[in-house]
Amino acid sequence: MLVGKQSWRFDNRPAILGTGVVGGPFEGKGRLGSEFDVVYDKLWMNEDSFEKASRLLVEDAVKIAIKKSGKQQDEMQFFLAGDLINQITPTSFAARTNSLPYFGLFGACSTSMEGLALAAFLVNYGGAKHVVTGASSHNSAVERQFRYPTEYGGQKAPTAQWTVTGAGMAVVGESSMQMTNQPVVVGATIGKVIDMGMSDPLNMGGAMAPAAFDTIFTHFQDFALPYDHYDCIFTGDLGEIGHATCYELLMQKGVNLPQNKFKDCGLLIYADSQKKDVLSGGSGAGCSATVFYGHILNEMKQNRYKKVLICATGALLSPLSFQQGETIPCIAHAVAVELLN
Amino acid sequence: MLVGKQSWRFDNRPAILGTGVVGGPFEGKGRLGSEFDVVYDKLWMNEDSFEKASRLLVEDAVKIAIKKSGKQQDEMQFFLAGDLINQITPTSFAARTNSLPYFGLFGACSTSMEGLALAAFLVNYGGAKHVVTGASSHNSAVERQFRYPTEYGGQKAPTAQWTVTGAGMAVVGESSMQMTNQPVVVGATIGKVIDMGMSDPLNMGGAMAPAAFDTIFTHFQDFALPYDHYDCIFTGDLGEIGHATCYELLMQKGVNLPQNKFKDCGLLIYADSQKKDVLSGGSGAGCSATVFYGHILNEMKQNRYKKVLICATGALLSPLSFQQGETIPCIAHAVAVELLN
Repeated sequence: MLVGKQSWRFDNRPAILGTGVVGGPFEGKGRLGSEFDVVYDKLWMNEDSFEKASRLLVEDAVKIAIKKSGKQQDEMQFFLAGDLINQITPTSFAARTNSLPYFGLFGACSTSMEGLALAAFLVNYGGAKHVVTGASSHNSAVERQFRYPTEYGGQKAPTAQWTVTGAGMAVVGESSMQMTNQPVVVGATIGKVIDMGMSDPLNMGGAMAPAAFDTIFTHFQDFALPYDHYDCIFTGDLGEIGHATCYELLMQKGVNLPQNKFKDCGLLIYADSQKKDVLSGGSGAGCSATVFYGHILNEMKQNRYKKVLICATGALLSPLSFQQGETIPCIAHAVAVELLN
Repeated sequence: MLVGKQSWRFDNRPAILGTGVVGGPFEGKGRLGSEFDVVYDKLWMNEDSFEKASRLLVEDAVKIAIKKSGKQQDEMQFFLAGDLINQITPTSFAARTNSLPYFGLFGACSTSMEGLALAAFLVNYGGAKHVVTGASSHNSAVERQFRYPTEYGGQKAPTAQWTVTGAGMAVVGESSMQMTNQPVVVGATIGKVIDMGMSDPLNMGGAMAPAAFDTIFTHFQDFALPYDHYDCIFTGDLGEIGHATCYELLMQKGVNLPQNKFKDCGLLIYADSQKKDVLSGGSGAGCSATVFYGHILNEMKQNRYKKVLICATGALLSPLSFQQGETIPCIAHAVAVELLN
């Protein structure tokens, strides 16, 4: 049901029944490398284009998520997903492979939580027993689309981020009383487009920070929650600069979060040794998707967190909008997940 | 609730409370010219790029839809929409303007019904009191993205279609017993990706026909409806070739529809005098959106139809996927609308 201005509460607590998390070679060497189900050792993944490799990531992650959910493919009703490539073709081709009735989504790097919010809504109200949702990105495919082909070896500003090669998918389904140690979706806040006039595609985190702030702040207001309600709040891919900016904006508004309860998927995924490439942090639609459906849910199942809020952030620009002098419209969607035990 | 394999029935019958339909100069001269709320007399619409003109179409249509719904902007909860341009920037920039919490959708030309199905689901289950949904396209922006800049004056095959310049938006909200002569959404069938191996982006209608067939056939099965249930079934933008193909596929499966009860938005929108440009018919995400939210709803309100099924079809290709030798994955979503009186 609608709560406050732009949030939903899910009283039936749809469960995340299984996840599939697939990554590339660079992610395998990252801090969370062991939390991927599959790590490819080559960016090409035996495909003849990076976009086709992107499709493969999605296909793999969907298959693994269904398998780990303990359900069969034919028990899934819908597939809600997207990616960053023009006309989200990697996801649409993966939808051809899995043959599930398909909702194509585009929320840039916020797609992971756009999908999870909708998936939870559908399951909560009996629109589906099980749906598959998630998001993905591929470093080489995305970099050449939004910036430069990686083969050019161009230098980037320290504000720039590293696009994650990875897909994170989940099966969301009805929860039952028998479940223990099960993550369930309890609420969501859908973001508005916020554009503070920034236009540098090599500083996306800074551009997205006000959108993340707006959604997190609205989430607390809509649900009338105390600021210490969550064991941790995770932003999607703000990186160092954006995450610090978002933290400051929250503090200024009186949202006093301890720093160790406010993390960013883009700052968690890579190892310190990768910093010279990663610069300000990880990004891409696959960033929050792989870190949440992998690492964060693992931490929850090990009882490190009981209640978390994931706020995935998206920069809704295109190369064309940048060339036409537009600023970067940004958005963030937040989903609240609790451990049922 | 879920009905059959991939359909929803909306027992609370969400209402289409108001619509906004905006078109370009060529659409104004078409057969349905008088059914647009606003017709621009220039493709540029006083903007300095066709993509910015696309954004303007969406902004206008949203404003008009809200006004005609008799509601205020701040009574709207969500905006679910998309278009064909890379990263759907026209829609995202319009979402910046209207400041509504935003779900970006990509279903190519099926986006209109992807949005209406989700909008109806959200309203039916109290996820929103009012949402705005719709889709758009702009001939010059889309043609240069998917085929060639129109300024080249390139010749096209007779199988090709003409991208509609237009946006169709609707306010979907709770229906009440007091309403009369009100179109309400009663059901939806979400399509799977169907790809019969066609790869010619100048014959999209032919590629999309099997997807339209699959969704319409599944719709009848899921709801166990007799084939004469609807006063008319409208496909989105199959054009002459695709529409004839889809009709044949339906007849072969025993779905005996009289030809005058099976129409195509792409064949309705333009005048016979425009045929030399239009070729096989209109297309684009704005095609089914403007024809349904304009013409078809007008016909319903004049009691020409009481029950209709709109099956919007989408070709989920990109220029890049075509260049990489991929075939065209297609999809279709169908929404059933009835007149409440």
